[in-house]
Amino acid sequence: MMDTMGAAARLAAGELASADGATRDRALQAAAAAIVERSAEILAANDKDMEAARSRDLSPAMLDRLVLDAARIESIATGLVAISQLPDPLGKVLADWDRPNGLNIQRVSVPLGVIGIIYESRPNVTADAAALCLKSGNAVILRGGSESFHSSRVIHQCLVNGLEEAGINPDAIQMVPTTDRDAVGYLLSMHKYLDVVVPRGGKSLIKRVQQEARVPVIGHLEGICHVYLHASADVNMATEITLNAKLRRTGICGAAETLLVDAQAADRLVPVVCNALIEAGCEVRGDDAVQRLVPGAVAATEEDWSTEYLDAIISVRVVDDLSAATNHISQYGSGHTECIVASSTDAAEQFFAGVDSAILLHNASTQFADGGEFGMGAEIGIATGRIHARGPVGAEQLTSYKYIVRGSGQTRP
Amino acid sequence: MMDTMGAAARLAAGELASADGATRDRALQAAAAAIVERSAEILAANDKDMEAARSRDLSPAMLDRLVLDAARIESIATGLVAISQLPDPLGKVLADWDRPNGLNIQRVSVPLGVIGIIYESRPNVTADAAALCLKSGNAVILRGGSESFHSSRVIHQCLVNGLEEAGINPDAIQMVPTTDRDAVGYLLSMHKYLDVVVPRGGKSLIKRVQQEARVPVIGHLEGICHVYLHASADVNMATEITLNAKLRRTGICGAAETLLVDAQAADRLVPVVCNALIEAGCEVRGDDAVQRLVPGAVAATEEDWSTEYLDAIISVRVVDDLSAATNHISQYGSGHTECIVASSTDAAEQFFAGVDSAILLHNASTQFADGGEFGMGAEIGIATGRIHARGPVGAEQLTSYKYIVRGSGQTRP
Repeated sequence: MMDTMGAAARLAAGELASADGATRDRALQAAAAAIVERSAEILAANDKDMEAARSRDLSPAMLDRLVLDAARIESIATGLVAISQLPDPLGKVLADWDRPNGLNIQRVSVPLGVIGIIYESRPNVTADAAALCLKSGNAVILRGGSESFHSSRVIHQCLVNGLEEAGINPDAIQMVPTTDRDAVGYLLSMHKYLDVVVPRGGKSLIKRVQQEARVPVIGHLEGICHVYLHASADVNMATEITLNAKLRRTGICGAAETLLVDAQAADRLVPVVCNALIEAGCEVRGDDAVQRLVPGAVAATEEDWSTEYLDAIISVRVVDDLSAATNHISQYGSGHTECIVASSTDAAEQFFAGVDSAILLHNASTQFADGGEFGMGAEIGIATGRIHARGPVGAEQLTSYKYIVRGSGQTRP
Repeated sequence: MMDTMGAAARLAAGELASADGATRDRALQAAAAAIVERSAEILAANDKDMEAARSRDLSPAMLDRLVLDAARIESIATGLVAISQLPDPLGKVLADWDRPNGLNIQRVSVPLGVIGIIYESRPNVTADAAALCLKSGNAVILRGGSESFHSSRVIHQCLVNGLEEAGINPDAIQMVPTTDRDAVGYLLSMHKYLDVVVPRGGKSLIKRVQQEARVPVIGHLEGICHVYLHASADVNMATEITLNAKLRRTGICGAAETLLVDAQAADRLVPVVCNALIEAGCEVRGDDAVQRLVPGAVAATEEDWSTEYLDAIISVRVVDDLSAATNHISQYGSGHTECIVASSTDAAEQFFAGVDSAILLHNASTQFADGGEFGMGAEIGIATGRIHARGPVGAEQLTSYKYIVRGSGQTRP
């Protein structure tokens, strides 16, 4: 079955390369209309998924990722329309120069080809990911999590409705029609048919990808994101940013998991910020210094520093100085997103230079780690690998390029 | 041993990230001086390699790749100096934009980290590859072919001389000190220490990489490059470009291996071009149509269409039209470099749109497929994969990026 899907995707990708941007956008708009039209069907399918999820005792964070309502369905549809309105990422002249011998060289964006996307519970990923692949002229094979199987299947049908209305080969967006875990392994080995795999999920998926992938991967690790409060941080800003970074939505990968506070400002900052977190319903797990300053804090263990809670829990540590903060981040972080709160711009520049993560923010919440917030329209996820794309992966990041060289008979001496 | 090298490289990469461009350039210049100073030693080592190569009956193309003389050593040294004079690829602001909420976002280039390079006979790759890695702030582990082992070892020592003179940790450029083939497998599995592997070699290496790599790969397939003579091609330009593309240097990956001629112009073009090739000492393997037109041609077999000769041999086929040419190329090509010779620019644009290879040329020799000829200073090779880098891989292609976001207390609504 998978080979058949792969061959069909390869064929569809070839056809898609000659579909112009307007046709691809028309398919996206028609898919959005189908989502709205079939929303009752999507909600019914989501009910099925939620029922199964509750009976399997999934965490509140997982349930929050999974659940759909009228507003979320509406936002899936508007997301598709928004992607259709983005500039065409294909055929863009990325660079253009002349050589002394008269050759003109252009670097021009082209699709990657066929993309495999392996993701977990959130059903909206089905629409977002497929739409970004289509926008960038790629065929896609989706392999969603078993939790969202029913919801995703109806959403996938809506996307196919869109392709058909625009006259695009429906095999351009395929979904693996089974929750069988072997399908993941097979997808990871399909180098004949897939140009790249984008995995989105927890540690076990990432580990499996690391061991089994025979296809290039745009990697998405978990987000162990840090907020570091520098000695120069304003206490109000520190409180607001930390609360937002941790609690605005705890289930997304850009949510903060660890708070680091400079020892020089610990007395001034730790009690205010941590008590505000506790009042907002967040569990604070602190080191000794934090526990002394915050009676409501519980003890953090070594494991806490490398845990992605995706929940209303935060680990808090007092660090000696900025370089101790960057050392902590490089030891325990996942290279995703880190924030420094500081009045000193020197400190911020030092943080930018010293921390090697995909996204570094000064005086802004880690929850801005999002393709939409970056102005990319949407994202498949936040890449934590260093190859090809890093940070938010939008339509532009799903392209490759080729060189076009125009001559007048030049031969090489 | 390999783990020790990996850990040392990781450490050196961390240190290198804080070395400024001037320091890295100083190391490159000092390495160039060492190469000139120690050229007698390099020649003596190369003699040893050549002796062993002759006793192993290597092909003339392989011997040509391997041999060094005073001029080639000089060119290795000037290559290092040229790389030192390129602009620093690090810390470049690749994009810079503001969001409506006042956030400023910059995409800034950073090193990839630690790069593994697996290559075959050419000893100059040792210098070029290591220099490009250093230029772009990456630590590198080199694994050269056994054929060039002695030459490469002395060149590697010169590079280390350069690092030491500039005060850079010498582990930034390491060479696997054995020709043991297991070392390749180990390198391919070192995802803990390597951020990317760049393999350069023939089919057996590529196949091994495909099966064993647990590290992201910037892929370099063989170059089965095509020259297509369109019906509108000028016969003189067609002859000159074909001769240059095939024979200027037969051992490089950008050398043409197959000539496709439009049926409409076969009578006009095939005899002239093929006889010129034969006169220049090239064997012509043609299909039936070519054999009828060129008495000196021998019969091509199916295998010829997918063979990288790297020698003075060319396969020649008459195709019905432009789309038959692009079909041939997509069936038998390796996605490297293809050329169309045509007076019609419409035909060229059709060729550019229809062929999906890293480099497409109109009226220019395929031998321009080279980072130096593209103005990149030098190259590690021509990437035929679609991920991260495609076409010539220079210093700029060995970088990743991170996002720097500057705010004033923004939280996400």
